[in-house]
Amino acid sequence: MEKELRERLSSIQPLKEKFLLQAQARLDSLTKPVGSLGQLEEIARRFVAIVEDLHPKVEKKIIYTFAGDHGVVDEGVSAYPKEVTSQMVYNFLRQGAGINVLARHAGAKVVVVDIGVDHDFEPMEGLMIRKVGRGTGNITRGPAMSKDQALRAIAVGLEMADRAREQNADLVGTGDMGIGNTTASSAVLASMTGLSVSQVTHRGTGIDDSTLAQKMLIIERAIAVNRPEAKDPLDVLAKVGGFEIAGIAGLIIGCAFHRIPVVVDGFISTAGAMIAVGLSPDIKEYLFASHQSVEVGHRFMLEHIGQKPILNLSLRLGEGTGAALAMFIIEAAVKVLNEMATFSEAGISEAKG
Amino acid sequence: MEKELRERLSSIQPLKEKFLLQAQARLDSLTKPVGSLGQLEEIARRFVAIVEDLHPKVEKKIIYTFAGDHGVVDEGVSAYPKEVTSQMVYNFLRQGAGINVLARHAGAKVVVVDIGVDHDFEPMEGLMIRKVGRGTGNITRGPAMSKDQALRAIAVGLEMADRAREQNADLVGTGDMGIGNTTASSAVLASMTGLSVSQVTHRGTGIDDSTLAQKMLIIERAIAVNRPEAKDPLDVLAKVGGFEIAGIAGLIIGCAFHRIPVVVDGFISTAGAMIAVGLSPDIKEYLFASHQSVEVGHRFMLEHIGQKPILNLSLRLGEGTGAALAMFIIEAAVKVLNEMATFSEAGISEAKG
Repeated sequence: MEKELRERLSSIQPLKEKFLLQAQARLDSLTKPVGSLGQLEEIARRFVAIVEDLHPKVEKKIIYTFAGDHGVVDEGVSAYPKEVTSQMVYNFLRQGAGINVLARHAGAKVVVVDIGVDHDFEPMEGLMIRKVGRGTGNITRGPAMSKDQALRAIAVGLEMADRAREQNADLVGTGDMGIGNTTASSAVLASMTGLSVSQVTHRGTGIDDSTLAQKMLIIERAIAVNRPEAKDPLDVLAKVGGFEIAGIAGLIIGCAFHRIPVVVDGFISTAGAMIAVGLSPDIKEYLFASHQSVEVGHRFMLEHIGQKPILNLSLRLGEGTGAALAMFIIEAAVKVLNEMATFSEAGISEAKG
Repeated sequence: MEKELRERLSSIQPLKEKFLLQAQARLDSLTKPVGSLGQLEEIARRFVAIVEDLHPKVEKKIIYTFAGDHGVVDEGVSAYPKEVTSQMVYNFLRQGAGINVLARHAGAKVVVVDIGVDHDFEPMEGLMIRKVGRGTGNITRGPAMSKDQALRAIAVGLEMADRAREQNADLVGTGDMGIGNTTASSAVLASMTGLSVSQVTHRGTGIDDSTLAQKMLIIERAIAVNRPEAKDPLDVLAKVGGFEIAGIAGLIIGCAFHRIPVVVDGFISTAGAMIAVGLSPDIKEYLFASHQSVEVGHRFMLEHIGQKPILNLSLRLGEGTGAALAMFIIEAAVKVLNEMATFSEAGISEAKG
């Protein structure tokens, strides 16, 4: 399993400058002042270079929402009880959650992946059952998972990227569900960057001051007990991460491998992106950061993966909601490239000088 | 004409708190942590209060792009020659411009309003010919327009809002086209706020350093020659504004009058919003700021109208492009309100505490 992962990682190459330059030349020929579409132009340029096609399409869009439970919830780090993870999976499958509404609005399909929920689901349309465990271990007492489980969870993400390729997905989004997973994500961030726990820990779904103080102590204990190795993303993932974070990391790696642009949701998804980028820095160029989360640690994650967020709407819901909204902007950028008239087509005078 | 405007202005009332509270109560009952959809919730709440309907729809969307010329272009303030205004109108009507691509993507119709282009257009589908003049006067030598012209240009905007109402528009966007209109917009901003010309003047469509210095001198001269009265928005508009800025102001006033939510594009449109808000401060609550422009003065305009921008994509194209993109986000916010399941519908445990 590790061999397959290593092979995929080693085949991911930096984007070719030729495509970036060709895309910018096309953008500069369109009937607008040079550079006046700002970040849309950056998105269009990079999309072209990822798919290696000067006229890419964005038709099929799929968001994979990975759901998993967290043993650390026993320590009282969340505003919600653990069973909300499975309750929300049912809500996703009944199309009633935020991600369902926003994905439908963006024209994207949602696939829910049970990668480690502490509940037995019957087979249902839209649900992939790929349990690696029934929730992670309590990270204040030991590792979240074994290294083998971490690799298996990453392989689930790789499998989803393979499926996206088979289904001719043009754009993939990441999403998460897991009560307790901001705790795991903050622990991953602190472990990989050396930032202090107080710099990277926030209120998650909405805890009060005393629970926030407790959450910080718990993350500090988790790091002290497990001693994750900053330079070894698999070690960090296994010791203080989560199954959904691993699945997201695998999905991102798999998308880069298949040259499918992937849009990363918020705090939890970007923890997954940090693991993926830690394993292959070239992956930075294959992903888009959908938004800047309210979670205080998120900006450090975005700096770490070298991405500017597309949106900044004070979201903190997860599920893939930010990814769904950003898909619309990415699609807009690609349409600009494909559909706008050039100066010569429109017979318009160009700028002086 | 002034009487009609005053009547409309006087009928615009503050939003009713009852609707804001009802909308928030509904948002808080949905299957997500309270407040976790951030700015989407603020948008949904205000949309409800504007239309006074707890389950509003966003189906019909129309963007009005007002085009006008500017006499000040003779002073060499733009990177583009004046004829680009009319050339771009043809580009809009042939569906080749940025606004056409992005409005199509957002599901919005574009109506182009010739409110003062220095060119005679034949009647064409999608074009409203409502010329108030053939370009404004050169503001370094005298006023942009007479007070009567300013009122007539505002009335064109009011007429477009009436048409939007007749066509059952659920959401309206503003847009502009006019070579030289960042100069007029900076002059409006400096005149109304007392900010220095150097604080509010930027590169427009892309001028070099020496042209930027020249542009600042020209705006200073325009203000010295015309002495616009800061407290009198109509005086500022007539002396240093533009026909498209007046049309946008009228459209915004008319939309507030008809309780149609209106999304304001970038720098030039927000100059129009400043005029509208100057005439009736209650209008602030009826509009949405689509994005934060690259133009340095734009943030002061947004502060002045009391709005947080929805997007920040380093755009500086105008035409209504930012409004088109933001329409998708506004529609998303309304869909969240209408389509998400509540905790009780989904049988999900609520937060502790």
